Amino acid sequence: MSADRLASVSGEVKQEIVLLSPLSAAAAPEPEPLCVFGTGDFGRSLGQRLQQTAYRVVYGSRRPHSCGPLPQGAQVMSHVAAAQSASVVFVCIHRENYDFLETFAPQLKGKVLVDVSNNPKKNIYPEANAEYLQRLVPGAHVVKAFNTLSAWALQNGPSDASRQVYLCGNSSEAKQAVAQVATKLGLTVLDRGSLAAARELEDFPLELFPEWRLPFRLAISLVAFLFFYLLIRDIIYEYVVNGKDISFRIMVMACFLSLSTTFQVFPIASLIMLSLCYLPGIIAAFLQLYRGTKYKRFPDWLDRWMLCRKQLGLIALGFAVLHVLYTLIIPIRYYVRFRIAASTIAKIKENQTTVFDTTVAWRGDSFYSTGILGFGLYLLLGITSLPSVSNALSWREFSFVQSKLGYLTLFLCTLHTYLYGRDKFLFPSTYKWYTPPGYMLSLVVPSVVIVLKLLILLQIQTHRHKYKHTGSLLVVMYGRYLFTPLL
Amino acid sequence: MSADRLASVSGEVKQEIVLLSPLSAAAAPEPEPLCVFGTGDFGRSLGQRLQQTAYRVVYGSRRPHSCGPLPQGAQVMSHVAAAQSASVVFVCIHRENYDFLETFAPQLKGKVLVDVSNNPKKNIYPEANAEYLQRLVPGAHVVKAFNTLSAWALQNGPSDASRQVYLCGNSSEAKQAVAQVATKLGLTVLDRGSLAAARELEDFPLELFPEWRLPFRLAISLVAFLFFYLLIRDIIYEYVVNGKDISFRIMVMACFLSLSTTFQVFPIASLIMLSLCYLPGIIAAFLQLYRGTKYKRFPDWLDRWMLCRKQLGLIALGFAVLHVLYTLIIPIRYYVRFRIAASTIAKIKENQTTVFDTTVAWRGDSFYSTGILGFGLYLLLGITSLPSVSNALSWREFSFVQSKLGYLTLFLCTLHTYLYGRDKFLFPSTYKWYTPPGYMLSLVVPSVVIVLKLLILLQIQTHRHKYKHTGSLLVVMYGRYLFTPLL
Amino acid sequence: MSADRLASVSGEVKQEIVLLSPLSAAAAPEPEPLCVFGTGDFGRSLGQRLQQTAYRVVYGSRRPHSCGPLPQGAQVMSHVAAAQSASVVFVCIHRENYDFLETFAPQLKGKVLVDVSNNPKKNIYPEANAEYLQRLVPGAHVVKAFNTLSAWALQNGPSDASRQVYLCGNSSEAKQAVAQVATKLGLTVLDRGSLAAARELEDFPLELFPEWRLPFRLAISLVAFLFFYLLIRDIIYEYVVNGKDISFRIMVMACFLSLSTTFQVFPIASLIMLSLCYLPGIIAAFLQLYRGTKYKRFPDWLDRWMLCRKQLGLIALGFAVLHVLYTLIIPIRYYVRFRIAASTIAKIKENQTTVFDTTVAWRGDSFYSTGILGFGLYLLLGITSLPSVSNALSWREFSFVQSKLGYLTLFLCTLHTYLYGRDKFLFPSTYKWYTPPGYMLSLVVPSVVIVLKLLILLQIQTHRHKYKHTGSLLVVMYGRYLFTPLL
Repeated sequence: MSADRLASVSGEVKQEIVLLSPLSAAAAPEPEPLCVFGTGDFGRSLGQRLQQTAYRVVYGSRRPHSCGPLPQGAQVMSHVAAAQSASVVFVCIHRENYDFLETFAPQLKGKVLVDVSNNPKKNIYPEANAEYLQRLVPGAHVVKAFNTLSAWALQNGPSDASRQVYLCGNSSEAKQAVAQVATKLGLTVLDRGSLAAARELEDFPLELFPEWRLPFRLAISLVAFLFFYLLIRDIIYEYVVNGKDISFRIMVMACFLSLSTTFQVFPIASLIMLSLCYLPGIIAAFLQLYRGTKYKRFPDWLDRWMLCRKQLGLIALGFAVLHVLYTLIIPIRYYVRFRIAASTIAKIKENQTTVFDTTVAWRGDSFYSTGILGFGLYLLLGITSLPSVSNALSWREFSFVQSKLGYLTLFLCTLHTYLYGRDKFLFPSTYKWYTPPGYMLSLVVPSVVIVLKLLILLQIQTHRHKYKHTGSLLVVMYGRYLFTPLL
Repeated sequence: MSADRLASVSGEVKQEIVLLSPLSAAAAPEPEPLCVFGTGDFGRSLGQRLQQTAYRVVYGSRRPHSCGPLPQGAQVMSHVAAAQSASVVFVCIHRENYDFLETFAPQLKGKVLVDVSNNPKKNIYPEANAEYLQRLVPGAHVVKAFNTLSAWALQNGPSDASRQVYLCGNSSEAKQAVAQVATKLGLTVLDRGSLAAARELEDFPLELFPEWRLPFRLAISLVAFLFFYLLIRDIIYEYVVNGKDISFRIMVMACFLSLSTTFQVFPIASLIMLSLCYLPGIIAAFLQLYRGTKYKRFPDWLDRWMLCRKQLGLIALGFAVLHVLYTLIIPIRYYVRFRIAASTIAKIKENQTTVFDTTVAWRGDSFYSTGILGFGLYLLLGITSLPSVSNALSWREFSFVQSKLGYLTLFLCTLHTYLYGRDKFLFPSTYKWYTPPGYMLSLVVPSVVIVLKLLILLQIQTHRHKYKHTGSLLVVMYGRYLFTPLL
Repeated sequence: MSADRLASVSGEVKQEIVLLSPLSAAAAPEPEPLCVFGTGDFGRSLGQRLQQTAYRVVYGSRRPHSCGPLPQGAQVMSHVAAAQSASVVFVCIHRENYDFLETFAPQLKGKVLVDVSNNPKKNIYPEANAEYLQRLVPGAHVVKAFNTLSAWALQNGPSDASRQVYLCGNSSEAKQAVAQVATKLGLTVLDRGSLAAARELEDFPLELFPEWRLPFRLAISLVAFLFFYLLIRDIIYEYVVNGKDISFRIMVMACFLSLSTTFQVFPIASLIMLSLCYLPGIIAAFLQLYRGTKYKRFPDWLDRWMLCRKQLGLIALGFAVLHVLYTLIIPIRYYVRFRIAASTIAKIKENQTTVFDTTVAWRGDSFYSTGILGFGLYLLLGITSLPSVSNALSWREFSFVQSKLGYLTLFLCTLHTYLYGRDKFLFPSTYKWYTPPGYMLSLVVPSVVIVLKLLILLQIQTHRHKYKHTGSLLVVMYGRYLFTPLL
């Protein structure tokens, strides 16, 4: 952009510009004046950041002479004068005050208006703020952007906060102009299409863990189902079969047992949810093998499932932590201490001589060992899911940890559960009211996942020549499912 | 900057410049020569980074022909020649060697001198290095900057280290010139005002956890107080009331008990410190409700308290982890095993028949359950305090976790402690020497915080219409307390 | 670059350029057309990112009119036409399809060709892809770059992935041109020298934890050695000395004991590996004191050792976690429960009256306390090793945690082990077959490290005046070993 063009654009502003001393000439701000409407927190922070990035900033204010502290070196003038001096105007005003912009719509014609506003709640206005702005100033090119950043993030730079800027707008030139500013500020631009997407963008800062919603619902349903299932098997069965008299003691007993039941729920839920992390990958692999191509999109339900695997896994880890804590607290529990003391007393009274059963000891220790090692790997999976750790890994490393070690974790935890059950499934007495005990329920999905995984590995092995040159058929849609490798 | 200007500025340098082949013309370094004095580690790393960012770098050295390896493509000349070719000079020299700069102060007149130096210790010189430099070269515009970055960080780029550059100086044009260079290097600039702030900036790399100091002092005082309080109640009381004979066994017993006491300290300190995280928010909310405005600053003590809530919480979490580990080790302790065996033996000898008391079991299990769930949430709060995790959350998500889940954690931990005490507070025997036991002490602050929080929620609920349009009155000073939401 | 030059370079392209409306003139893309060959995932993502960073992108394609969706605003033409319009060409094509580039080598003469390709495996081609490309188009300046980035990372910006771009090439101007583009994209450039380094760069994305290899091998050897050592001492000795009859029970017993042995291995391996983190620093310090200079490089083996200290420490932490979990599970084990019950029964039968031994209780509790505190600090060291946490610390803070607290951890863990052994080393019965028990083995290295460390501190203290002005002699090569401070 030549100096002449600038002169013609910002003619009347020129006189007010501070003459730059020769010393800063080498590093003088580039002659692109950017206009900021509004001198609130966000406007001030944005202006300051723009100035630091060598932009010249012109503020538009209702009262240019009494608008509080502004970044050093910034000019303040009336809205009209400020808008005339720049081609990009950042509208850092609350939506409620937009209407005054209508009065000088002619002066804003052809300008890029950047709407940075947010609402305190969803759905309080019939249309998005940016669309409302566009309606007020039809001649301008409204771009929705920067609304997911806070004034604080702008002041302190991207290292303290998210670096992504979402933008949308109807004019691609206007979007490009805004994208360029954002890039110069060190931010990363994600274009979300036309201005119709503004509502979605305005809802972003109001979202509460959107990607966790599905896994949470699943977790809560699973826990609720398991709780009532175990309650029926353990307490109601006991009550129906063994005793009929409702008394205070029975009530307290029921409370106590239902509390114990709660804690039985965690390991079962954890194992099922861990296997649900790996099931969609298996289904996707079979789908691809059946279709013979990796370029066809998955059905919607599978896509959503694939995208929430990380969250599923982290909730499963949370349950596993609770399970471990509860297991370790066992020997302190009154119930357990009472039973141990009772059994010791009984032995003495009956003058029994118990023999140390090495098979029991060995089986018990294998049970604990697989549990501990599985939990250790589980923790490792959780740690590598931390953003800063997974960023430090190459894709191959991440996929090694999440896929290879992930399957090893699943295998160890499944084995742990099998060792718990051992041969109990052979005895009819375990099937109260013809229902299997909880741990058996938890074994269904992981067993299926492990068997299918082995089948796929076999399939790849036998048809090795097919996948040789083009890379594995099974590595699908790299980007979309990154950090949640398929297999 | 036109080519002509450059020619006049760096006239005599021109001949030495490598002629750029046409191929790189499209991406040629911008014609801004930057000068670096000093060819040590920092100077070399800075020059290399500047060159990668398309700046042309000219080194000034005492011995231009024997100054060791420099970044490829950089020129080396005498200090005077180098300074003449550029308007910004990075002084990468130890303070002890600054004096020679005085000799060519005239040639440095009007230049921007960037002081990047640090001292090995605080307060070894009467004035800041940058102020000393300014005094030596009064005609130059000294800017203090880059001193918090290491040579290593410059070489390896911002992803491996902090991205923030603090700067200060008396000339705002000079600061702008340096800020622009820093921004081009992908760094974030934080202006700290005039050169008088140089001392503060030079002390930054020497600081040791400044924001942890207050919480640490509090934690240590609390632990020390609790230790002696419990020591007096548990050991000295025992000694005074029960026995007078000092013997070796008593001494060892005292040692053992004081060790046990140490571990009783952790849960009490943890709960008190967790509630101290939430107390300042409550006080601030009441202050705002009383004042009726959110734009007035809090008193200094409250401000400092608010700003160290994260650290308070993390120390509380550390104590909670120690408490959990110590609780879980209980059944292995010799003391505990001895007592259990003794009680079993006693029961047999007296031929007692003990009945399983479901109320005790139920109460005990509730006690453990609230503890485990509280600790699980506590861990979650700790994980979301990791920089990379909290950056990935939106403000609303972060405040949900830290505020809503935080209060739930506090509630569960308080309940856990109440369940421990149960009705013991009714018995006079618990008040040895008229002092309440430790767990009662720990309940005071959390109970107050929870009650006041409920009052505020009630207040907001009943005056809902007041806060409707302008957003909650209670969300104060967004930026300053970010990542430590008020309520 | 003047507009005239552009016109002459991209003469025939000019007519196709979309006329920019005046509105975006202030923020118009800089007139540097960049060419991208190939319209696959990577080519499309790269082009999109370049456009967002205000570059103009011209795609070269075999079938310019049917090449699928491209970033909005990008032009597509034949390879030859596209190449003529730009001086930098990104070759986003699979290596197998490179050969067609040979056919228009004349048109690519003098251009910068950026090779972004990767191979599915190591060593499948005799030469690096970039070298092959250079051989096909000898007149071009081939630069290897961007191959460590994924299409996904390019689309979503640097915050989601690594920000480092490695590049190499024979022409430094060509490299500078590419470095400039990378810097504008917000990436950090690391120059790896001439094109001969291309193979190394191409192997980067295929590496699996290269820096973990040495520590892993060490960990596995150590665990294997300890396992067999303890197996011989605990099981084979038992078998040889006590019984000769091989029966099923003995076999199961052996399995059970070898399982127990496995878990004894973890604490020993953990302590040895923790001390191996600090040993190289001690050796380096002695070497520097002996040499009298900090500017001489260490021998290769020491250098490699120093650089893998973080990994050594993290594996040691992993072992410590397993040790803690196994210790806490002890009271639930059948073997332990059986023994406790047996001892209680025995006491009753023999009508013993056991007295509470406070010395045993005190010693046991000290043993647990040092272990718990040591493990707590160990966890802290692990947490500060997370990239996002260590980035938030200043160098002084990081070195305080890793060095001072690290030595405290080592000291506590060593003390914990000494308390375990107590005076057992005096009894000949502990030396089965003249071998010391495992825990004694684990004490050798940490004891040596602690003693040597004290010697060095003493040395520094007595020769304090020597190190006064130039900073500690012992802070060596700051950058190279950053995040793994020497002492």
